[in-house]
Amino acid sequence: MFESARLPQKMTKKAFKKLEPKLREALLAAQLPVIEKQPFSTLILVDGLDGAGKGEAVARLYGWMDARHLVCNAYGEPTDEARMRPPLWRYWRDLPAKGETAIVFGSWYQSVLRDWIYKRIDEDAFEKALARIRRFEEMLAHEDVLVLKFWFFLPKDVQKERLKKIEKKNAARHVLADWAALKHHKKASEAGEKIILETSKGNAPWFVIPSQDAEYRDSAVAQTVARSMSLKLEDGQEKTVAAPPVVGGLQRETAVDTIDLTATLEREEYTSLREKYQEILSELSDRKSMSKTGVVLVFQGNDAAGKGGAIRRVIRPLDPRIYKVHPISAPTDEEKARPYLWRFWRRVPRKGHFAIFDRSWYERVLVERVEGYAGHDDWLRAYNEINEFEQELSDFGFIICKFWLAISEEEQLRRFKAREDTAYKQHKITDEDWRNRLKWDQYAIAAGDMVDRTSTHYAPWTLVSSENKKHARIQVLKTICKRLEERL
Amino acid sequence: MFESARLPQKMTKKAFKKLEPKLREALLAAQLPVIEKQPFSTLILVDGLDGAGKGEAVARLYGWMDARHLVCNAYGEPTDEARMRPPLWRYWRDLPAKGETAIVFGSWYQSVLRDWIYKRIDEDAFEKALARIRRFEEMLAHEDVLVLKFWFFLPKDVQKERLKKIEKKNAARHVLADWAALKHHKKASEAGEKIILETSKGNAPWFVIPSQDAEYRDSAVAQTVARSMSLKLEDGQEKTVAAPPVVGGLQRETAVDTIDLTATLEREEYTSLREKYQEILSELSDRKSMSKTGVVLVFQGNDAAGKGGAIRRVIRPLDPRIYKVHPISAPTDEEKARPYLWRFWRRVPRKGHFAIFDRSWYERVLVERVEGYAGHDDWLRAYNEINEFEQELSDFGFIICKFWLAISEEEQLRRFKAREDTAYKQHKITDEDWRNRLKWDQYAIAAGDMVDRTSTHYAPWTLVSSENKKHARIQVLKTICKRLEERL
Repeated sequence: MFESARLPQKMTKKAFKKLEPKLREALLAAQLPVIEKQPFSTLILVDGLDGAGKGEAVARLYGWMDARHLVCNAYGEPTDEARMRPPLWRYWRDLPAKGETAIVFGSWYQSVLRDWIYKRIDEDAFEKALARIRRFEEMLAHEDVLVLKFWFFLPKDVQKERLKKIEKKNAARHVLADWAALKHHKKASEAGEKIILETSKGNAPWFVIPSQDAEYRDSAVAQTVARSMSLKLEDGQEKTVAAPPVVGGLQRETAVDTIDLTATLEREEYTSLREKYQEILSELSDRKSMSKTGVVLVFQGNDAAGKGGAIRRVIRPLDPRIYKVHPISAPTDEEKARPYLWRFWRRVPRKGHFAIFDRSWYERVLVERVEGYAGHDDWLRAYNEINEFEQELSDFGFIICKFWLAISEEEQLRRFKAREDTAYKQHKITDEDWRNRLKWDQYAIAAGDMVDRTSTHYAPWTLVSSENKKHARIQVLKTICKRLEERL
Repeated sequence: MFESARLPQKMTKKAFKKLEPKLREALLAAQLPVIEKQPFSTLILVDGLDGAGKGEAVARLYGWMDARHLVCNAYGEPTDEARMRPPLWRYWRDLPAKGETAIVFGSWYQSVLRDWIYKRIDEDAFEKALARIRRFEEMLAHEDVLVLKFWFFLPKDVQKERLKKIEKKNAARHVLADWAALKHHKKASEAGEKIILETSKGNAPWFVIPSQDAEYRDSAVAQTVARSMSLKLEDGQEKTVAAPPVVGGLQRETAVDTIDLTATLEREEYTSLREKYQEILSELSDRKSMSKTGVVLVFQGNDAAGKGGAIRRVIRPLDPRIYKVHPISAPTDEEKARPYLWRFWRRVPRKGHFAIFDRSWYERVLVERVEGYAGHDDWLRAYNEINEFEQELSDFGFIICKFWLAISEEEQLRRFKAREDTAYKQHKITDEDWRNRLKWDQYAIAAGDMVDRTSTHYAPWTLVSSENKKHARIQVLKTICKRLEERL
């Protein structure tokens, strides 16, 4: 989920100097009409990892907006007054009037997050609490409150560095609490993932803020606030569509951009590794415990990246009675007449079986998004629906591996040409492939968003460097063996 | 919640004969364009209590609609095929194509309902399952599936009678299962209440069907199906607003209509009872355990029904430091600038205290609905929001008593006139009171809907016959004492 937030996402001082006046202008252009016309109030929730610089980011926002109509509410342990009343009371009490903006530290997510990290509640209670929060925020949206939620993110090693530095400066109790938080980095990140997946809605979206670089971080926050307030001013309506978690503001590198395409593998080593992993896979698929699970493999990637070849190497060691390859192309009439995911549900394997998808439900957020076959709202809500679909499979005990096979633009051109030149490969290249190629950048953005929004701990994406096909096939085989090994 | 469904709701054979052709016409007028244009598919979920005649109702629907485009899917124990795949799979498999309608027996609510009744899951897991169902249905709505959910309701004694009769006819195993269900009538009703409250949304509403009278029951189902399909045809859009559970189709008697206004009480008995209950209340409010709870009393009723007088009798025995009476009139500017419930949250008592509301948050679904101060969507979603507000209070340990004080139209007239004739009472009667009186019937419908939709097991309505003020005051005092006694 935090794939692109994990990347450094740097911004030079110079770029920031140039951007700053524009950000200030955009913020005021959004805030001033809200102050004047009072169409709604704004809540900015500040959550995420300790040491990410939440305070600094908000301080900067204060400097840039009209601070007379901005209030900052920080909630720690409840006061005596608050303890005597239901937990939501203190948040209700401090709701800003229309036209005003409140920044909320220690929001209603804090207590449920803490209860979860310290194991005071189980997963059911956690989900129930999130469902209630969702209803609460839905109500706020109906009542003219714009709720923007920021999750400040740092990779674990960076967070550790940060907290060390802070400790040197001021060895206060506050920092000790932060260190305690670090121990829970994994649990907090997982909980964050769950919170963000389950409570990011069009009327109260989450924005993940990559926080390694202060300038990038603060610019992302400012731009997101300005844009969200302006949008709300324009249409006045809350969005009905479920919004996927979004990495806030600004252009950014995505995980897909960073795949190292130089990886390679010699024929000899390839052959020996392929035989090794195929043998392991064969053995794993024969285990008795396979009857308790099912395996869903998803292959997506650039055109000509070698999905078919990789799939062939996966099925070689499998008993044909326990797998099925599903090449996904345009939906049939039968399929068009039903909800989008129907055609994939009907291909869900039974326990003990493999279903291998050559293209998949992800086409909706790739080709259908880029080519406009799906409406904007439809592909936008698809991320959440896909996550829930995969969760159903995972909850039932299924193993899900998803592969993105990446090649460079130049390598694709070479492969396209080779296909045209080789008689028995000509059927594999069509006009459509050439057309898609013209939209290379749009497909890259779509793929990056897809990985950011649908890589979950129960169904992670594996990014595969496919410039060298041999390398790609081994990475795929190895990943499947590893995932199966863990579970069988 | 099932207040008006609990009433007999009879329909004469003659009235039915007259209505039947109209119902058939309305059903076909809705179904035929759907078959032709295929804008959406329809799922009709049939749930509720055993013995309520679900099968009969559906059989009638079959006779009235074009059965060639109607399919009935009944789900019992999962087949071998289904058991090998995630639980939702079999429902996905059978989704009808656009233009078609499927009737679903044994819907996705069945397993969670059964797990809950047989205590295989706790409340958290129950709520979590419902939250997931809500997301599933939301997705269906986005994907052009109209989901209509019917809850067939019978009062416990009527259900018992029914099942006895069925048993005589055919003593099969099937009936034994039904009898088992009866043992759980209370739990099933409570679970039904929770299911309906938490999963009734504009895009997948619940309709409670009073099922004592077959003709009424079947007419209500038919009319609801026809109306919902027509509405969906017209606007094409799914409703974004949270819909309250609705008692399906047709005019009906409401619980408020049935209050026995002849109840009376003599002065002497009144005085002795009043003193008795005031003493009990005084003692209860002094108990140490009071410090762990808080009491919220809500008084609503017809104008001049005697809310003020009843409240005075309640506060007499209380220490003035532990209660506060909140007369609710038009919102202030401060209040108008914030979400509707803000002005009530700020009046939530602290533990150990009483908050007494002379009018309350219910004004939104009474005067604001009838006079049009709140938009249609706003008062409609208010039912759910109010239920959730009260649940927050209840979960925190607060006791909530809600009173509807009812008088007849004639008695109100007498009291209005008396107020005009008595110098020190003249301030109590305004032009507005006279204006409201002209809309007596609309207020009665609003009050009936309010009780149907917001009487929950954690915050029930008490309907008080107030034609005789003494009787009303004693009923109020007695109810408060009883509720406090149970908890302190």
